[in-house]
Parts: sequence; C-alpha cells; structure tokens
Amino acid sequence: MNEMKGEWKLIEWIRKRTQLNPAMVPIGPGDDMALVSLGGDSQCLVTVDVLLEGTHFDLAKATPRQVGYKAMAVSLSDAAAMAAKPLCAVAWVGLPDNRDMAFAEKICLGMSDAAERFACPIVGGDITSWKGGLTVGTTLIARPAGVKPIRRNGAKAGDLVFVTGDLGGSVLGRHLTFSPRVGEARQLAAIATLHAMIDLSDGLSTDLGHICRESGVGAEIQADVIPISANAVRLSKADGRTPLEHALNDGEDFELLLAVEPVDAQDLLKQNPLGDVRLTCIGKIVEGREVTLVGPDGSKSPLPPGGYEHFR
Amino acid sequence: MNEMKGEWKLIEWIRKRTQLNPAMVPIGPGDDMALVSLGGDSQCLVTVDVLLEGTHFDLAKATPRQVGYKAMAVSLSDAAAMAAKPLCAVAWVGLPDNRDMAFAEKICLGMSDAAERFACPIVGGDITSWKGGLTVGTTLIARPAGVKPIRRNGAKAGDLVFVTGDLGGSVLGRHLTFSPRVGEARQLAAIATLHAMIDLSDGLSTDLGHICRESGVGAEIQADVIPISANAVRLSKADGRTPLEHALNDGEDFELLLAVEPVDAQDLLKQNPLGDVRLTCIGKIVEGREVTLVGPDGSKSPLPPGGYEHFR
Repeated sequence: MNEMKGEWKLIEWIRKRTQLNPAMVPIGPGDDMALVSLGGDSQCLVTVDVLLEGTHFDLAKATPRQVGYKAMAVSLSDAAAMAAKPLCAVAWVGLPDNRDMAFAEKICLGMSDAAERFACPIVGGDITSWKGGLTVGTTLIARPAGVKPIRRNGAKAGDLVFVTGDLGGSVLGRHLTFSPRVGEARQLAAIATLHAMIDLSDGLSTDLGHICRESGVGAEIQADVIPISANAVRLSKADGRTPLEHALNDGEDFELLLAVEPVDAQDLLKQNPLGDVRLTCIGKIVEGREVTLVGPDGSKSPLPPGGYEHFR
Repeated sequence: MNEMKGEWKLIEWIRKRTQLNPAMVPIGPGDDMALVSLGGDSQCLVTVDVLLEGTHFDLAKATPRQVGYKAMAVSLSDAAAMAAKPLCAVAWVGLPDNRDMAFAEKICLGMSDAAERFACPIVGGDITSWKGGLTVGTTLIARPAGVKPIRRNGAKAGDLVFVTGDLGGSVLGRHLTFSPRVGEARQLAAIATLHAMIDLSDGLSTDLGHICRESGVGAEIQADVIPISANAVRLSKADGRTPLEHALNDGEDFELLLAVEPVDAQDLLKQNPLGDVRLTCIGKIVEGREVTLVGPDGSKSPLPPGGYEHFR
C-alpha cells in the first residue's frame, strides 16, 4: 500500500473516522500492510495495490505479461517491507473492451510468474471488461512467520539507515521486472534488530519521510554514499537532472529502506549478508523531525519528499 | 467474486495452471470466496470485487457515496454466499484526474457506511489518480465462524432450491443500495443443512447454472413461484420483456440462492425464519445436467444462463 503525499490526507481522514479495535487490528491503515487478528494467536497481514494504465505502466512500453508480473510484485514488495511471509493473493483485471481473452491470459501469466517464484498462489480473482483503460490489482495475504512484522514507526535516534540495491531510473524498465526483496527482508530481520522498514515505492526522499514522520524522528543522509543505479545516470544524461536527484526521488525502486539498531548495524556493515544484493548504510536517524541531506563537504540541506505525488 | 459466462474460460485456465495445495487452499478459484489455511486450525476466506464506471455504475445515476457503498456491499455479499463472518476489508480507488479529494472522500464515506453496518472495518487502502474512469474495489477477509463455509458444489438431487427477496430490475437503483444477506445466510446455515449457496450477482439463470455445473446436477425451477420485484414489472413496461425474464436474467440482485437438504427444507417452508426478508422455494435439484423452467401448465423449457456476460 503506497502512500503518496497528497494521498496522505485521505488516509488520515480514514484513520480518524474509523475506530479500529487494536486487539482486532493491531496494525491499521498507514503501514505497508495491515495486521489483523483472526482469533486466538492467529494473525494475518493484508495489502492491496492497483496498477492503472498511464500512471503505473504504459502499454507502448510494457507487455501485458510484464504488467501482470508488476501487479503481483508490488504487493510482494509490501510483504517484504513487513518482513512477512507471503501466503496467497487474489487478483483482478479491468480489461479494456477492445482487448481479447489472449491479452487477459498474458496478464494472468505474468501474475503467475511472480506467484510461482514467491510461492504465493493466486486463489481467486475477478476479470471484467469495460470502456476504460487497463487496470490490474492484487491483494496479498501474508503471515508474520518467525519474525514480528517490521513497522514504519519504530525508528530511533542513533539507528543507522540502510538501503538495498541501487536507486533511480526504474522507469527505464526495472519497475516492470524488479525482484521484490521478500527473502532479503526476512533474512535481515532474522540477523538484526530492525526498528523500521519500508519498501521504496515513492522514492527514497518520500519513503524516508514516511518512516521519520511515523516514528517522530529526523534523519541525516550522506549524499555521496547513496547507491545510484546505471539507469539513473542514463536518465540524467537525457534530462539534465543529476543522477543523485534521480536516486533520491524517482520512486518505484522497490528496494528496502531500513532503520537498524546501532550494534546490529555494525555487524551488518562487516558482513555481506545479502550476497549479490548490495546493502548500503546511507545515514542515521536523529532526534527532531528534520530530514537532511549531508553533502560531501559536510553542508546540510533539507531533503523534502520528492517522489511521485498525487493530487498535486 | 463473480463469474461471468465468458470469464469462466479464464478461470478454468487459471485453475489448470495453478497447482494449489488443498491443505493450504481448501477452496480455490471458482467459488464466492477462497478458503486459505493460516497454519494450525486457523483459516480465512478472501474475495475480491472491482466496480468499473460504465459497467457496474453510471455516475449520472449514482452518487460517489453510493458507489463506495456498493463496492463494499458486493464483497460482503460474497461473504454471505459462504455463510462466513466478515472480518475486515481493504479498498482501493482509481480516481479520474478531474475529480478532487472531496469526491474521493464521498466514496470512502460510502465504503465506511457498509463497513460500519456489517462490523467489517477497512484496514488499508490505496488511492491513485489517473486519466481513466472511476474504479473502486474491495478485498474482504472473512472467517468461517460457527458454520462451515457453504460452497457452490454440494447440491444433491432432491434438494429444494430457495431464494431470498424479490428478483429483477435491480438496475433501477437497488444495485446501489441493496443489503448484503450476511446475517440471513448465517441464520439459514445455523438452522438448516445447506448443500450449496451462491449470491445472485449474475442473475438467477446464470448463478443457478454455476451451482448445477459445480455440483454436477440439474434443476427444475417453477416459473410461477419466482418472486418478481416491483422494479422488474416497471422495467417490463418500458422494454417489453416480461417481468419473469427480468427476474431470471437481470443480475445484481445480491440475494441468496440455496440448495437445501429436503427434510430441513420442509422446516424452512413452515417457518418464517428471516422475518421481513422473503424466503421462497422455487424448485428442486434433479439428476442430470439440465436446468429447466417449468411453466404453470407443466411444460418444460431449458433455462440457459442469461445474465450479463463478458467477452460476448
């Protein structure tokens, strides 16, 4: 469940209106997944994500199979952000009425690709044709198996901030083919105390802002250590914005951003726990509310949310 | 989860492709909700439904609050069809980019109306603006509390067939304001052995076809006892189709259709278990595969699925 800046107000509105019983809903709206009690000790996590033609994909650049894959992968990335174990998904397709069954099958095939890869079967769905654009969505159910769900709101001053992978330029193709960090998140949660975690859907600057706001803390990020993707550099040559700006603000990286207990963070820095997936310490959580970017010369500047924003 | 006739093929395709572990997923695609194991004795049911502008509602005739209500109510009706207890829902809105926050809030208000009425809190959601039409969807999680989930595939020759409420003409407004039969279904399941149940989303003729196909049986329905709504009569005067045709085929009644163990059916006929909600015995389940309509003179004619159909 992504949270765009403008969307935030609506989520706050829903939060205020809905009196949730914390025994029934230990984690409500505003995190990557909600946590719901099923009675006794049994709990499940749930998230919903919807992809809309023209906003989240362009059929001139994406195959229907890729769109189906992305729909599932975005929800799997939410499960990763909570360090949860995906259990099953339901999916739906709003199919433009000029598209045929073969097109719909390709979307389902893409969803199956992700479902099989992450052992998260699609157990139901709904397909309807309409006069509108293509819309594909998934709801994923997960279990808090082995580790407690990692929330956005637990970051503490002194925590070190890490990201997985390289950031920026996802629009050049990676947003359709990325690998949700489900295994990596559960591995990190098993070996280190993670105080907060989120997946980078809206962009580093925006998603770090979510963690800081929810946790009531600030952060200082070192500009010169942010892992910048080759695609951020490519985009930079085309549009004149710096590779760093792309890495900070592009969004749809679907990497993990985490705030780690300082002692454990030192261990993570010595190890290489994720193998081929890079793990980089990019800064620290601080007291206060300000999120700042620290330049190579030590100069500090505010790092406002700069990811994709609705209702602008 | 509705199943339109043309959609059926796609569901079959997904069913064949996806090897579901029956221990993990006791009820997979093709019923009103899927049943999923969460480990131990713990299970949950899940359904997804999506409403698309122009297909499921017309903003010239429906308020945004009604659209929000309908989105939740359709999923609640799926829970009713399984005699399950709704637990929570997640919701999403694809918002046309010419609509504002106030419009989105009205949709949420409508979803809240249904959520509060059925004690089924909305625990998460996703709202995104786009260039397309309005799309609103919900995923509902329910529990099989007290009674086992009632499936579509258990009807037996000799069962009597019942419907709740009056049928047809829902398009005149009831499809936006109907009351999902959640309590009624659980009440019926508590006092009678229900071999199969479905909610009438696609129309009596189509949904009865689903039960018969899944159960491997036929049915004989008495034309002169089908409860016809006043709106079916009104529509009939406008379009020249008979009120019976409307009651058989219109769809979106969101009433319950059930196949009841004969002994218990006799008890139901003597009682008036649902109070103001009419319960009518409209026919019986028979051996074979044919679904027939029996006229007042005893003449039999095939009753093919005639509800709304995609991919026609």
